[in-house]
Amino acid sequence: MAISLSISELADRIDGTIIRGEAGSLFSGMAALDTAGPEDISFLGNEKYVPQFLSTKAGAVIVPTGHDFGNHPSALIAVANPSLAFAAVVRHFAKSVKPFLPGVHPSAFVDPGASLDPTKVRVHPGAIVMAGAVIGDGTEIGPNASIQEEVRIGKDCHIGANASIRERCLLGDRVTIQPGAVIGSDGYGYEFSGGQHVKIDQVGIVEIHDDVEIGANTTIDRARFGKTLIGEGTKIDNLCQIAHNVIIGRHCLIVSQSGLAGSCRIGDYVTIAAQSGVAGHVFIGEKAILSGRCGATTSLDGGIIYAGKPALPIREENKLQAHVRRLPKLIARVKALEDALKGET
Amino acid sequence: MAISLSISELADRIDGTIIRGEAGSLFSGMAALDTAGPEDISFLGNEKYVPQFLSTKAGAVIVPTGHDFGNHPSALIAVANPSLAFAAVVRHFAKSVKPFLPGVHPSAFVDPGASLDPTKVRVHPGAIVMAGAVIGDGTEIGPNASIQEEVRIGKDCHIGANASIRERCLLGDRVTIQPGAVIGSDGYGYEFSGGQHVKIDQVGIVEIHDDVEIGANTTIDRARFGKTLIGEGTKIDNLCQIAHNVIIGRHCLIVSQSGLAGSCRIGDYVTIAAQSGVAGHVFIGEKAILSGRCGATTSLDGGIIYAGKPALPIREENKLQAHVRRLPKLIARVKALEDALKGET
Amino acid sequence: MAISLSISELADRIDGTIIRGEAGSLFSGMAALDTAGPEDISFLGNEKYVPQFLSTKAGAVIVPTGHDFGNHPSALIAVANPSLAFAAVVRHFAKSVKPFLPGVHPSAFVDPGASLDPTKVRVHPGAIVMAGAVIGDGTEIGPNASIQEEVRIGKDCHIGANASIRERCLLGDRVTIQPGAVIGSDGYGYEFSGGQHVKIDQVGIVEIHDDVEIGANTTIDRARFGKTLIGEGTKIDNLCQIAHNVIIGRHCLIVSQSGLAGSCRIGDYVTIAAQSGVAGHVFIGEKAILSGRCGATTSLDGGIIYAGKPALPIREENKLQAHVRRLPKLIARVKALEDALKGET
Repeated sequence: MAISLSISELADRIDGTIIRGEAGSLFSGMAALDTAGPEDISFLGNEKYVPQFLSTKAGAVIVPTGHDFGNHPSALIAVANPSLAFAAVVRHFAKSVKPFLPGVHPSAFVDPGASLDPTKVRVHPGAIVMAGAVIGDGTEIGPNASIQEEVRIGKDCHIGANASIRERCLLGDRVTIQPGAVIGSDGYGYEFSGGQHVKIDQVGIVEIHDDVEIGANTTIDRARFGKTLIGEGTKIDNLCQIAHNVIIGRHCLIVSQSGLAGSCRIGDYVTIAAQSGVAGHVFIGEKAILSGRCGATTSLDGGIIYAGKPALPIREENKLQAHVRRLPKLIARVKALEDALKGET
Repeated sequence: MAISLSISELADRIDGTIIRGEAGSLFSGMAALDTAGPEDISFLGNEKYVPQFLSTKAGAVIVPTGHDFGNHPSALIAVANPSLAFAAVVRHFAKSVKPFLPGVHPSAFVDPGASLDPTKVRVHPGAIVMAGAVIGDGTEIGPNASIQEEVRIGKDCHIGANASIRERCLLGDRVTIQPGAVIGSDGYGYEFSGGQHVKIDQVGIVEIHDDVEIGANTTIDRARFGKTLIGEGTKIDNLCQIAHNVIIGRHCLIVSQSGLAGSCRIGDYVTIAAQSGVAGHVFIGEKAILSGRCGATTSLDGGIIYAGKPALPIREENKLQAHVRRLPKLIARVKALEDALKGET
Repeated sequence: MAISLSISELADRIDGTIIRGEAGSLFSGMAALDTAGPEDISFLGNEKYVPQFLSTKAGAVIVPTGHDFGNHPSALIAVANPSLAFAAVVRHFAKSVKPFLPGVHPSAFVDPGASLDPTKVRVHPGAIVMAGAVIGDGTEIGPNASIQEEVRIGKDCHIGANASIRERCLLGDRVTIQPGAVIGSDGYGYEFSGGQHVKIDQVGIVEIHDDVEIGANTTIDRARFGKTLIGEGTKIDNLCQIAHNVIIGRHCLIVSQSGLAGSCRIGDYVTIAAQSGVAGHVFIGEKAILSGRCGATTSLDGGIIYAGKPALPIREENKLQAHVRRLPKLIARVKALEDALKGET
């Protein structure tokens, strides 16, 4: 955090407008509004933080354009998206991107039948790469991760610590797997026969396209046959369950602790908020949004925001819930009617 | 996928009846209805796939008996359970069962105090087997899995990559543990004393009987004392939580992301669908079925399908939810009564 | 389990009163009420177990003070909290606390740039400790766990098998991490730009204070910048999700499968029961209790028990749910009113 940043450099870098502040003022750090000091740059990314903004001691704050900030004492730089702009500040001060140091650590095990260029791939201590696996250049395999037989991983991927990628699964380029995630576990498939649940062989794979991120301890089951598919650019959060033969489109967001049951299909640009569930064999249309803890028990049209279980368009669901909360009033009205009628007779 | 299969061979193998097709026609692959070509065998396993069946290009389709399939162009073989029958096709083409290659990999660590026959057990790279552990013949310990002190594992088990089995836990024969699962973590037990939550020692074990399967990243806590028990043939899906001292009967299905709280008891042949919860110290009777996201807050009788939270017999719950959805109509009826009464006076 | 215990020794140790039984009677084991025999000590920790208590064959039972137990045949010792008292029995018979044996196992990898005293720290087989990490005396790093660069872990901590602690995270003293847990995975942060979700660098850390316990396969994301914080004495159960920039106070209980969304703040002594969710950016006041599967979508005052989604004080929520269950009766009353009015006209 040695290199300071001036307001004018900052405004240049984020394509922002200086609302207030000396162009040459220097800042040496970054912090949230409530912990920042005069040497720090901060940002107002969400209306909920207006109280913290009003009392912040930050030297400079990145704010949204089109608002009047009165005579706030901090230097202010306005941009369309302060949160996105702040990422440049983070990158400047944190140098978050660790340099890529290729090499296979002596405590790792790479099977002679695996294919990777040790001058261009980094295999961390304790990691395992089994026979037939192919690892693209620029890819990092985290400590104690296991890459099983015939897995193919593209270029510039990050496989987290203790993650498991089972045999024959395919990953594209720039895929990130957070620690502990499991790719290619057996699908949950049994047939009931003779008083027992008999396992159905799960011989398919998981195929993950470019620019996908998979969260920590998330599980993605391999297909019964064929493939479970995660489309390009889709981001899956921690502790999600993706069952066998699920097909997820491109650029979806699947938030933490959500579960997608077997063979469901998710269109492009779908958002599934936290703790939601999608039933097996249904289809969720493009750009649908399932709000938190939604339960999609049937197929849903795209382009609509849903809530509740079973999922309804969010307005309908909100109305129903409002009716439920007003049940005491409705009961009182019925009682009044009964009394009125009784009074009559 | 080199060995082709003729219709008559297929019919023999799955004990099916050829409805249409030349006995000698050969097929070289398998696929889902919507992706199959003329060289593939497919199956109709679920009513929802009738549209795909009607337009499939599959050379042959395994269909349920007792239906009229008109003049569908594919060869058709009828059986009682097409999904189960298709498993034989999968086995034929995929040769999914990898040959068992015994041996302890040099990068694995097996403590000299552990007991296993290296000519009959496979210990994968990076796996750890600690002192006092006993591993049965035919068992495979996956890459980077850890088997702690005095664990006993039976014959023909599969322990997945990066799975953890803590000290003294017991596994029967033919048990499968998917990657990342944790068996024998401490139960969540504390006493509140002096303003703090003081840990209660968790000295029991987890005991898993024959033919059980445990899903990826599922967690099963050891008992406070005594044992947490998973009965014979029970199948637990991914990301489930089984708390300390839970007792699960035989041949149950516990679907993904469900949680069973401490000391609950689950009878034989119970099904608990995805994202459900069972409260502590309650009993779920034999053959009960909890539908998705059910919340069993009290003991429940066996042989009944439940839904909702608190769990009700599914018909009751469905009626209540239908009433909720019709609240706008009920409110309108009350309004009409009020108007009528107002009009009168 | 060789050392037997007499009733008078037991009463001394747990500060209990002998209600019935010979002071010199010896017991050699411990068991739950329904499995105990005449040689075992058991306890009555919960009203639900009165039936098992009435028929138990246990030689001695620890019971709550202030009750009349009639002429129960077992020896009885009364204490204020039988469950807490029983912990002393467990400790006596189970010798659960394994002796601490320091040393770095030859199959572990400790980077020369890490800092730990191998005569005072135990590093189990397969564990990885990377450059710049600092491990306090008395701490144990489980088999195949990975401790990444510059992590600092205090004294007397237990890091479970296959757990992952990512770079720069900080753990206090006496912290327990159960197997498979992930500390410091990237927060789920993206900005939508040019039709894609662009990752926002997550350069902060996770900071865990003294006496915290983290459950198996739980995930705690690092902050975008700054820190995700778990306060002193807080206990988090299995399979919980703690998102980036969450701040949890001291001595909280977060029960299994609960999820806390980004930047929410949890006061001291809060209890969040199983399968609950807290929305992003909200505040949960001190000593609030969220009952099972609660959904806190807005900030909540402390000192209150909540239920439902959206969370309401539990009495209100219970009343609303009772109204819903009585909807059939309300509908019948409206029907009766309609009939009465029809009869009139």
